[in-house]
This record gives sequence, structure tokens and C-alpha cells, in this order.
Amino acid sequence: MIRKLAILGVGLIGGSFALALKRAGVVGQVVGYGRNRENLEVARSLGVLDVIMDTPGAAVAEADAICLSVPVGALPDLLTQIAPYLRDDALITDVGSTKQDVIFAARAALGDRIAQFVPGHPIAGAEDSGATAARPELFHGKSVILTPLAENRAETIARVSGWWQACGAAVTEMEAERHDRIFAAVSHLPHLAAFALVAELAERPEAALFFQHAGSGFRDFTRIAASHPEMWRDIALANQGALLDEIDRYQEALARLRQLLENGDSAALQALFERASTARRTLTTYLDRS
Amino acid sequence: MIRKLAILGVGLIGGSFALALKRAGVVGQVVGYGRNRENLEVARSLGVLDVIMDTPGAAVAEADAICLSVPVGALPDLLTQIAPYLRDDALITDVGSTKQDVIFAARAALGDRIAQFVPGHPIAGAEDSGATAARPELFHGKSVILTPLAENRAETIARVSGWWQACGAAVTEMEAERHDRIFAAVSHLPHLAAFALVAELAERPEAALFFQHAGSGFRDFTRIAASHPEMWRDIALANQGALLDEIDRYQEALARLRQLLENGDSAALQALFERASTARRTLTTYLDRS
Repeated sequence: MIRKLAILGVGLIGGSFALALKRAGVVGQVVGYGRNRENLEVARSLGVLDVIMDTPGAAVAEADAICLSVPVGALPDLLTQIAPYLRDDALITDVGSTKQDVIFAARAALGDRIAQFVPGHPIAGAEDSGATAARPELFHGKSVILTPLAENRAETIARVSGWWQACGAAVTEMEAERHDRIFAAVSHLPHLAAFALVAELAERPEAALFFQHAGSGFRDFTRIAASHPEMWRDIALANQGALLDEIDRYQEALARLRQLLENGDSAALQALFERASTARRTLTTYLDRS
Repeated sequence: MIRKLAILGVGLIGGSFALALKRAGVVGQVVGYGRNRENLEVARSLGVLDVIMDTPGAAVAEADAICLSVPVGALPDLLTQIAPYLRDDALITDVGSTKQDVIFAARAALGDRIAQFVPGHPIAGAEDSGATAARPELFHGKSVILTPLAENRAETIARVSGWWQACGAAVTEMEAERHDRIFAAVSHLPHLAAFALVAELAERPEAALFFQHAGSGFRDFTRIAASHPEMWRDIALANQGALLDEIDRYQEALARLRQLLENGDSAALQALFERASTARRTLTTYLDRS
């Protein structure tokens, strides 16, 4: 049971976390802080928050559970701001899409209190953002990855894990480095690839004509290009190394495909498409859970 | 009113065309030919076809309406096979995703009968294929592009247009060259980009682990990588020139993005993501129709 939950950054993820815990009946009061006052008022009117706090420090000062759900680029400052106000019994988690950089910032800001922080990443999202997009079932059946620290006590990890389980999520644990490598490939690269394609098309004089004739394939492929620009800027920079590697691999894969096409190598093209199609169909069993 | 409709290639598109015209009550009998006997039997049992024919020639011999719905690579041979059997009053359309190559093959095969052929491209599809995937509402509210020939009589174009309108589609006309350029950008490139990404990931030793952690963004981005490999091989080769140009533009766009990331150019990255996100959101008005 959480007595007082502090949500710092009351958007889709933070807001949904609050709503899910409220629905599960495991939280007493929810207080919130964010940069956008209008969004906080919306959150309160929707029942996401009970109380709006004016500073990060005030938000965490009496909290026993803290969720940091701001874009990862804003985490270092936020951690520094809350550190002096943390209670000894407060547990902190975050929802950042990258973990090594968050852990680095947390160690710097929290010092001796680092054992109170259990890094997390819920694999759930949507192109909509803000408190109005929050919904209690967002994490239901979704995966949440925790990348615990050597300093975390087993009981601390179990409690944070329990919060996410109360939201209906399946929790797994892995090392932060492994997490960042996997998500560079299956999430960060696809987002950048979609952003690049749409931005390039949008620059052309005939952009409107082109988009007008786009079908459902284009719609699916580019859906993630509507994602939150600031959030994705932060993710890209936070996972720079692994992501540069992934872009290089992808460019090489595209160059190989281009060569097959230029050579008119019908058999090799079909073989490549078949490998992709088979893999995508086989792995639908995983994907349909998400 | 169509007396006898011949479907050559009874898959998702050809089968749905037959079902839609039947539901609209504008067709007497539907006969069909295809390479896969089992698929034809399924089509007949599902009511897509009334009669299975053993050769393309036999299928078209008494037809006044003919739909060529095979992968574009199979069209040249098919056109050559049906040419000697065409009635003077038979009108032919196709559903190929590329148009200049189809027109080239049709001129070679049909000779004096070229005026009976109105090239078409319905903008509808799905990752599923075969007669079992066919459904009468597939084209409802979708766009169908005709790229008429100088030789077509206005009445001929109007009749073929009427077939698609009877399927619930909105018909537009444009030049074949323009069609091929537009679809290289908004359809063929995205498919190749998705095939390349999934094939590259699938080759890695950790592929299963990676796919296991893929979320809804990855699922959307790669959905088109489950598309029919043979069909896409044919489309890629048929639209080779325009598609090579598009791959080059895309690789340049990715290289620019990579450079911004390597430089840690936060402002330029955000600006690029914002251009893409705004374009993708603005153009949802077009896309939601498809």
C-alpha cells in the first residue's frame, strides 16, 4: 500500500500510472508536479491527481512512492531538485526509455540515497501525450522492465515491481546495458527511421499530393513519426552510442537491398523479403501481447 | 452490368473485387483462373467464383469483363496467353501497384486490342493474401487510381471506373509516370525499408530476445514487412528506377539524421522530429480515409 504517491511529469505515462494504482486501490493520495500548469489542472479535473504541488521538492517531501515520468533529458535536473527532500522510506522509480544515462544521473544526484531508486521502463506508449491521454488500463498486459542497481535491496525491488503488477503489467528484470542495446534496435531506430522518412517527404514541393495517395501501409509505417518530438530527441541523445550503431547497421542493410534491386537480382530480393515476412509473422506471437 | 467476369489471379484483391461486384448485383457469372488449384477450390467454396477454368484463355473466352489480379511480374505472360481469346467487347483492367511496366507489357501483348485495356491500381491491401482473405468491403471508401491510355475511349474508361465505384471505391485518374513516382515514395520505399529492417534484425543471434521486447511502435512500423514477398519482389523490380531514387533520398535523410545525432545537435534533432510529427499529424486527415 502506498500512502502518498508523487508523480513528477503528469503525461500519458505518469498519469496512467496514477490512474492504474488508484483503480487497483493501492494508493492513498496522489500529488503531482509538472512544468505545464494547464496540464496539471486538467490532470486534477480528470482525477489523475488529488493535489497539485508547486515544486518538485514539495511534491516528494511527504511521499513514500515517487514516479519520475518526465522526458529523460529533464531527469538529471529533476533528480537534483528532489534529492534534498526525500524521506528515508521513499522509493523512487522512473519510466525512461533509456536506462544507463538515467542511472548515471541518479547516482550523481542521489548519492547515498541511490539504493532508494529502482530504474524502470514500461513498454507502453501511444502517439498521444499529456494528461488527457492518460488511462488506467494503459499498462494492462504490457511489459515493464526494471534494471535494478547493485545497491537496491531485494525488498525495495519487490515493492516497485508490485506497483507495476498492480497496474496489470508483467515485470521482468535485466541489466541496463542490455536494455539500452535491445531498445536501440526495436524502438529507437524504428522511430528515427520513421521520423527521417516523413520529414524528407514533407520537405518536397509535392508533399500534399504524395500524402494524399498514401495507403494503410504508409499509415502503419509512419504512425510512430507522430510521436513526441522532445521526448524522442532526449531518448536519441541518451542512447546515442547504441543508436549510432543501429543506424549504421540499417544503412548497410538498405545499401545491400539497393544493390540487389539495381542488379535486378530477383531471387535474392525475394529471399530477403521472405526472411523478413517469415520473421515478422512468426514473431507476431510476441508482438500481439504488446 | 457485367455478363461474365473473369478473375485471373484469385487472391485478396481479385477475390474481393469479385465479391464486391456480386454484392453490388452488377455481375452475372464469375469465372476464375489461377496457378494454385487449392486456392481456386477455396474461392469457389467461399462463393468468390462460380466456375474454375483450366487455362487463362478459357477464362477470358466468353468474358465481357476481365480483371488481371496476379503479381505484376506474372502479367506479361498472362497478357500474351489471353490475347488470342479476347472478345471484341471485352474490357480488361488490372490491379498492379506499378503502371508503366504493365502498360509496356500490355501494348506488346495486346497489339490492336490495347484500347480494351484500362490500367488500374486499387489502394487497398493487407498483410494477408489468398482467396480466404477476400472480402466484399475491402475497397469500400478506398481510392482506386486509373491511368488510362490515349487509345482508350471515354466510354471504356467510364465503364471500368463504374466497376470500381460499384465496389464502393473513389476513382481518380492520373498519368502512369506520375503514379509510379508517387507510389515509389509512399508505398514501395516504406515496404522495402520495413523488409530491410526486419530481415537485418532476424539475422542476429539475439533476434528472439529483440523481438520479444518489441512494443506497439515496432509492431506498426514493421507490419508491412509481413507482406507477400513475391508480390513485392515484382513491384520493386517493376518500379526499379523511381524506387532506386527513393532509396537514395532516404539514405541521405538517414545520414543527415545520423550526423545530427553524432554531433549531439539537440536543437536540430528536435526540429527534424517536429517537422515529421507535424506533417504526420496534419496529414492524418488524408490517411484516415484509407
